[in-house]
Amino acid sequence: MSAPQNSPVIETAHRAKAAAATLAPLPRTARDTALLAVADALTARTEEIVAANAKDVAKARAAGTADGIVDRLTLTPERIGAIASDVRDVVALPDPVGEVVRGSTLPNGLDLRQIRVPLGVVGIIYEARPNVTVDAAALCLKSGNAVLLRGSSSAYASNTALVGVLRDAVEGAGLPADAVQLVPGESRESVKELMRARGLVDVLIPRGGASLIRTVVEESTVPVIETGVGNCHVYVDELADLDTAVDILVNSKAQRPSVCNAAETVLVHEGIAEAFLPRAVEALAKAGVTVHGDEAWQRASGDVVPATEEDWGTEYLSYDIAAAVVPSLDDAVAHIRKWTSGHTEAIVTRDTDAARRFTALVDSTAVMVNASTRFTDGSQFGFGAEIGISTQKLHARGPMGLPELTSTKYVVTGDGHIRG
Amino acid sequence: MSAPQNSPVIETAHRAKAAAATLAPLPRTARDTALLAVADALTARTEEIVAANAKDVAKARAAGTADGIVDRLTLTPERIGAIASDVRDVVALPDPVGEVVRGSTLPNGLDLRQIRVPLGVVGIIYEARPNVTVDAAALCLKSGNAVLLRGSSSAYASNTALVGVLRDAVEGAGLPADAVQLVPGESRESVKELMRARGLVDVLIPRGGASLIRTVVEESTVPVIETGVGNCHVYVDELADLDTAVDILVNSKAQRPSVCNAAETVLVHEGIAEAFLPRAVEALAKAGVTVHGDEAWQRASGDVVPATEEDWGTEYLSYDIAAAVVPSLDDAVAHIRKWTSGHTEAIVTRDTDAARRFTALVDSTAVMVNASTRFTDGSQFGFGAEIGISTQKLHARGPMGLPELTSTKYVVTGDGHIRG
Repeated sequence: MSAPQNSPVIETAHRAKAAAATLAPLPRTARDTALLAVADALTARTEEIVAANAKDVAKARAAGTADGIVDRLTLTPERIGAIASDVRDVVALPDPVGEVVRGSTLPNGLDLRQIRVPLGVVGIIYEARPNVTVDAAALCLKSGNAVLLRGSSSAYASNTALVGVLRDAVEGAGLPADAVQLVPGESRESVKELMRARGLVDVLIPRGGASLIRTVVEESTVPVIETGVGNCHVYVDELADLDTAVDILVNSKAQRPSVCNAAETVLVHEGIAEAFLPRAVEALAKAGVTVHGDEAWQRASGDVVPATEEDWGTEYLSYDIAAAVVPSLDDAVAHIRKWTSGHTEAIVTRDTDAARRFTALVDSTAVMVNASTRFTDGSQFGFGAEIGISTQKLHARGPMGLPELTSTKYVVTGDGHIRG
Repeated sequence: MSAPQNSPVIETAHRAKAAAATLAPLPRTARDTALLAVADALTARTEEIVAANAKDVAKARAAGTADGIVDRLTLTPERIGAIASDVRDVVALPDPVGEVVRGSTLPNGLDLRQIRVPLGVVGIIYEARPNVTVDAAALCLKSGNAVLLRGSSSAYASNTALVGVLRDAVEGAGLPADAVQLVPGESRESVKELMRARGLVDVLIPRGGASLIRTVVEESTVPVIETGVGNCHVYVDELADLDTAVDILVNSKAQRPSVCNAAETVLVHEGIAEAFLPRAVEALAKAGVTVHGDEAWQRASGDVVPATEEDWGTEYLSYDIAAAVVPSLDDAVAHIRKWTSGHTEAIVTRDTDAARRFTALVDSTAVMVNASTRFTDGSQFGFGAEIGISTQKLHARGPMGLPELTSTKYVVTGDGHIRG
């Protein structure tokens, strides 16, 4: 439908679609062989990859990029070895393609089977980490999809080198090189063209900051899977065990604050506030966390910063947490419904009724009962790998593994069946 | 995200979201009771519905609307009885909500369950048939969703009456009336506002002509499920049984030409063309079908109209069919890949290898082997009901029953689990 023609991005998408048609009917062994070749090639060509990466790193340093971001951008022989090892782990995962999702013999004798098939062409739009280039390509190949990679311009030299290595390995294994392509161009324009390539690209998965994701969601005519923004809550119920509540709160917030499954708000039932707040404030302070609290929290400690309405909607991704006392579980649920991004919410309680009510009423990707919000993760859930965490309700919700990179088709077999 | 505020459509969507939150945790009995009340009310208030419908019918006749469309618009006591009976059938279907889709105990002892939950708010944009109003509302209620109905302005009086009956019945059964709402306004503007109500509406399902669907797909920021356009193919292989091939071809084309799973093109292997074409031409003519054929077909009969390139891409929905002879199965697949809308394709063959290759290479919602394309249908597939046939790959593909109107969430239960 009206995708712009003759641009380098659209030509790339056409080649991806052709490659996808070749990939789809291939058996598992063909895809696994290509992935093992990719792993070997990454190790064999480490020097070349490191050299290309050094250009990106030098450019980033010259631009005064923060150390943390430069670190995420940097590839070392050790890191490349770990990436190659991750590819081998993907090879070992079960093949989602060909799985019969449902099947029956209909009353008229027709055999009905619903079978998993690759999505086709998957576009990934992501930020500076070059390891995502290989991870995403490996998961797409494993699930029989062609992939269009649109990484950050700050990693363009690294990604160009990595995709070169991947394409050579894939082609050497007898698969079409165009199964893995870097989207040409470093400008925003190339993202826009990708978003309008409906009919060529089957799904776009934006991975990155909230503004990137919002742009893609609002402007794309290609179907999008929204990922990653996590304004996660921990609710400490009236009947919570205090030690458990402190442990889960601190772990949810501070074990790794920069990720989407870290907690950003704690809500505490007023019946337990007097006992819990002083302990929570102390434990959070010890973990280096600044509390942005309501009046009750401010009364509990002079170190609590007053919370404004803005705090309830903020994904800090830092050693900060918003904190409020609520009159009831239903008020906690109402607060969460109003402010959550729909990622993960946890309840700490010993009350079975409260646990049941909270899990029924909270409409988020994951609801934790007496467990840290940090567990919402593909590898924690045992999926072996993850291409992102969907916070939308359509197609996939929560950590997306290989089955989430597939669609299905119906195969219906008869012996001359016609409708009467 | 930037949905326009304070318009009647957006206010409707806000009420739907609130109703969805009330509906989601309700058990099956509550929803079933409301649906039975709906069925009873439709019968009890037949007179009122017929009176409202008479206004739409009079308006349509005055505007010179074609008889077929007026017929589809018309509600009689008998038809209302059938609609009520369909609602009772929906009540009897299994409840999709609460089904545990996957579950396991993780190595660390956490209990992981992925559970079906309602999508939330479902928007349906559809054309003149007022029976869709009740069907769609019943399927949404059964699956725990609130529904926003945006029917054709030509059925506005009928839909207003029907939705009034539905809301009264739902409310009388103790559920929120706003679980069922008609989108206010008869103008295109109201559709546009619905398409921008991201964050309030969870999915839009357009049902209708190709241009309506294209508009929604291109302009909506709310996730869309694309339905219904069917440029379906029948491929008659070299090793087809001739009688079977004629029967399947005629049934696929002519049993009900106006629907999306009717065949629009027949492709015939050149090795069987000499034997098959004369019989096909005769049988199609007898069924009243005009053949738009390539040169081989034109040679087979003087009644064959020359096909142009445009014919390969046309969804006739009439007693017309495009027809070509192809040198091989792979050429048939290439033709299909180029022209199909991705709905349904059939192969007629006695060759197991050909059947296997065709089903592997054809990437459409449904692939029929020795069966009519007309079987792609929710009730034929045994789903009991259908809200539409998705021709996209994301979320749902093919006939959509109740499970396709749900999402999932993860519930993870521990006893104080934190990440190390």
